[in-house]
Amino acid sequence: MILQMKSLRWSAAIKSEFKVQGIVPVFADDTVALVRQYRHAAGKYLLEIPAGSLEKGENPETGARRELEEEIGVSAAKIEKLSEFYVSPGFLTEKMHVFLATELSETKQNLEADELITIEKLTFPQTFEMMQNGAIEDAKTIVGLFLAGTRFGFHP
Amino acid sequence: MILQMKSLRWSAAIKSEFKVQGIVPVFADDTVALVRQYRHAAGKYLLEIPAGSLEKGENPETGARRELEEEIGVSAAKIEKLSEFYVSPGFLTEKMHVFLATELSETKQNLEADELITIEKLTFPQTFEMMQNGAIEDAKTIVGLFLAGTRFGFHP
Repeated sequence: MILQMKSLRWSAAIKSEFKVQGIVPVFADDTVALVRQYRHAAGKYLLEIPAGSLEKGENPETGARRELEEEIGVSAAKIEKLSEFYVSPGFLTEKMHVFLATELSETKQNLEADELITIEKLTFPQTFEMMQNGAIEDAKTIVGLFLAGTRFGFHP
Repeated sequence: MILQMKSLRWSAAIKSEFKVQGIVPVFADDTVALVRQYRHAAGKYLLEIPAGSLEKGENPETGARRELEEEIGVSAAKIEKLSEFYVSPGFLTEKMHVFLATELSETKQNLEADELITIEKLTFPQTFEMMQNGAIEDAKTIVGLFLAGTRFGFHP
């Protein structure tokens, strides 16, 4: 399904019922796990922090823990809010909650049937370089990596 | 107009015809000008980098120069691409181009009839604090300020 928005004006708003959250999972060696997956809207594979939409009645932190386990197969003893922000406030009500997950232990990746995801572990300096050279080109991922990286003492 | 997206699935895509661009205008004293405006989709005033959509046939750099002059009344002798990224690649084709504008000279603010915008000049350390405490909560603005600030030697 492709919805065309040619005629949408800036005064219009798309009221999204999704509550969405992203998670920056940082391991004991200060590496971060990102997921690479095909995005139909982009028409290509993108490297992103694990993310998803909340299930009905689920709070963002619980959703973050569930997505983290499903997408990269780790559980987090510690989850902290890093930020929440509008992804496109000119016309979209969608707000993204981004969490930092630490004290990770491995469980088992448990993808939904239509998900095809590969996991890439990177250092923060590697991710900063990839943000600057265009290899990482997803807004929530850039925001999450900047906020998490600087919290761990890494600077671009 | 409010479009409801309750039933939208993650495999769906909204094909936006908008090409959008944001601009981080940095003055000679290393302050940055942001705009505060009411966003219907957010239901409140947000503090953002100047931004807008391209006119038909316009290239992103030309659009950035036009928006900068319209929204904050300055022209830039120097425009550089900072980043381009997807704002919500799970379902939105929209890609944001973010530019750094320097060597600024004042012209005249020239808002469209439906725009009500106030300009706030801030230092990069102030903006970093506002990103971390939630006073700045727009994705393109966070990305643009991080990339521009670190280029000028400021770190959160």
